[in-house]
Amino acid sequence: MEFLSWRSKDEIAYIRLENPQEFNTLTLQLLEEMEDLLKDIAEKREAKVVVMEGSNRVFCAGHSLREIEAKTEQEVLTLFQTCQRVMKTMREIPQLIISKVEKAAVAAGCQLVAASDLAVASDQAKFATPGINSGLFCSTPAVFLSRNIGRKKAVELLFTGNFMSAQEALQYGLVNKVVPLEVLDEETDQLARAVTKQSLNIIELGKRQFYQQIQMEDFQALNYATEVISLNSKHPDAKEGIRSFFEKRPPVWT
Amino acid sequence: MEFLSWRSKDEIAYIRLENPQEFNTLTLQLLEEMEDLLKDIAEKREAKVVVMEGSNRVFCAGHSLREIEAKTEQEVLTLFQTCQRVMKTMREIPQLIISKVEKAAVAAGCQLVAASDLAVASDQAKFATPGINSGLFCSTPAVFLSRNIGRKKAVELLFTGNFMSAQEALQYGLVNKVVPLEVLDEETDQLARAVTKQSLNIIELGKRQFYQQIQMEDFQALNYATEVISLNSKHPDAKEGIRSFFEKRPPVWT
Amino acid sequence: MEFLSWRSKDEIAYIRLENPQEFNTLTLQLLEEMEDLLKDIAEKREAKVVVMEGSNRVFCAGHSLREIEAKTEQEVLTLFQTCQRVMKTMREIPQLIISKVEKAAVAAGCQLVAASDLAVASDQAKFATPGINSGLFCSTPAVFLSRNIGRKKAVELLFTGNFMSAQEALQYGLVNKVVPLEVLDEETDQLARAVTKQSLNIIELGKRQFYQQIQMEDFQALNYATEVISLNSKHPDAKEGIRSFFEKRPPVWT
Repeated sequence: MEFLSWRSKDEIAYIRLENPQEFNTLTLQLLEEMEDLLKDIAEKREAKVVVMEGSNRVFCAGHSLREIEAKTEQEVLTLFQTCQRVMKTMREIPQLIISKVEKAAVAAGCQLVAASDLAVASDQAKFATPGINSGLFCSTPAVFLSRNIGRKKAVELLFTGNFMSAQEALQYGLVNKVVPLEVLDEETDQLARAVTKQSLNIIELGKRQFYQQIQMEDFQALNYATEVISLNSKHPDAKEGIRSFFEKRPPVWT
Repeated sequence: MEFLSWRSKDEIAYIRLENPQEFNTLTLQLLEEMEDLLKDIAEKREAKVVVMEGSNRVFCAGHSLREIEAKTEQEVLTLFQTCQRVMKTMREIPQLIISKVEKAAVAAGCQLVAASDLAVASDQAKFATPGINSGLFCSTPAVFLSRNIGRKKAVELLFTGNFMSAQEALQYGLVNKVVPLEVLDEETDQLARAVTKQSLNIIELGKRQFYQQIQMEDFQALNYATEVISLNSKHPDAKEGIRSFFEKRPPVWT
Repeated sequence: MEFLSWRSKDEIAYIRLENPQEFNTLTLQLLEEMEDLLKDIAEKREAKVVVMEGSNRVFCAGHSLREIEAKTEQEVLTLFQTCQRVMKTMREIPQLIISKVEKAAVAAGCQLVAASDLAVASDQAKFATPGINSGLFCSTPAVFLSRNIGRKKAVELLFTGNFMSAQEALQYGLVNKVVPLEVLDEETDQLARAVTKQSLNIIELGKRQFYQQIQMEDFQALNYATEVISLNSKHPDAKEGIRSFFEKRPPVWT
């Protein structure tokens, strides 16, 4: 891997975008490395949470306009299809993904935050989808952004290109927490540990259920959820979890 | 009825969960009683609003883990299907349902609040969906929770099991008001009376229309709404309502 | 035009509701004028933003109850279908629409704000959907209102008829900004100018993409967005936008 690094500790895998000179832009090569790495983490089932990190200059500036300019239309399509596969992989791995946003998250960098399951931002983070300033509307960032924040705010960001502060990102629902920069690592780990105490099997089941049901009509969703929770109730990890609750001891997951 | 009580006053029906020793858990028997009671209130058409109350120790702790542990998978399915029928009945009765949340609303107790049409919480209320702590993901609570609050916050609650304060519940849209505990009854009644002044026929029509349209594509929804409002305009209660408006007198509903 | 006026300046078209004695009610004639005017602005492609203005007494009081009372059911249907065509036209024109709300926006007046792409309110603005008070449920306003603000707040407004303040409208996502009345024009123009600096071709493409994708399942939406952004990348305005970015000069749109 050239544009990513990763390390793992206490069931948390940390993926770091490692191209700070280029503002951590999501080049084709970086995206291919990301897809492979996520699939590898998924398969190993050692981590329960993935933390996505930028550098201390920028979280991620999105795609590279130089790369887009240089490529043919067919090559650009391949670039964006690769990015789409990364997003799909983020959705499909059993782990929860937390974006840890130190500084600016822009365009597809903002999409990365929006497509994550959880996000923590420093008070110096900021968010924008300014593609339209260069005549290239942020169509792909729009998808998860508009599913995190309201329509009016999404339109504002997408058509003005203006930045939104970390505090606004919290208020509109793009991130879960905003904390001082000096405690960003610590606060992100704390959120991650609230998840790593759970069973990976049940995190996996819950993640799949959550995103499936959210697309359905209310009672179609409830009917699906009824089937899932009934099956879940006799899963070994539920049996152990319920038993340990009554025995006032920590559960031991399979 | 063994686990519910109810009373009625000024076109408001108050349903009280009455199993405080068991934290008002939604046992099969309680759910069956709830379904019958809601259908009875619907049929009588005397109340215009239903207020759902817990006790002063807990609003509702969700399903009983003891009951789930003791039941076979088939019996657990029956339990959750009964709960699903209660939710469907809540949606289908002509009355609006207000959850009045004094203290904790947990798991399916939180679902009850999310599935209500309106909710008022005391400043001592708190909300959680901690099933995953026991290996039993809150799949059914996830449905209405994720339709009340944003994705990121819903994921946080569902995968960490952490509590959300009343103030956060207001900010994220799970409840309509947060008030000091000592005025919770009064403030809930005030909200209820803002609804009981309306025609029950039109509350019924509006409730059905609201939840139908919310599932549709924008202009399919608008087209459906156009049909509904045109028919509504010649309903006797609309004729009387419009007439009374011009005659500067209170309307007399049929 | 009898009930509307309009002027144009710096690529912004200002449409003013001009029936203040009747509280700018959306009569059949006003709606027909609005549809024609919007189509005219769309076709001319001179403006990039449309600002919708009320008067200094009221933004818009919705439909005329006198007109509804006087019409037959068939005529009422025609009225609401005309309103529906106006909403569809608002969606289909290439320009972004900003509602500038000085004072009260009520019923279909509130719908106008909700159906706009962006909205700025003065601190004296307020919002209500009180049709149910007259037995005529705000079915059509419910559509875009419930797609701007959460379910619980939408139910509260629709079934109580109570007003929501400008500050609440901001908090719940119905408007983008709340500003003191004396700077409402200036602040609205500033937001408009952040859009007029973009290419109209790309505003048009982005507006269509945004509202199409928002109705789709997550990855159906992302797949559609992937196609759109790839095509967009070789649009002359993207080529110029990206080039000008590297050459550190303002872009010149076609």
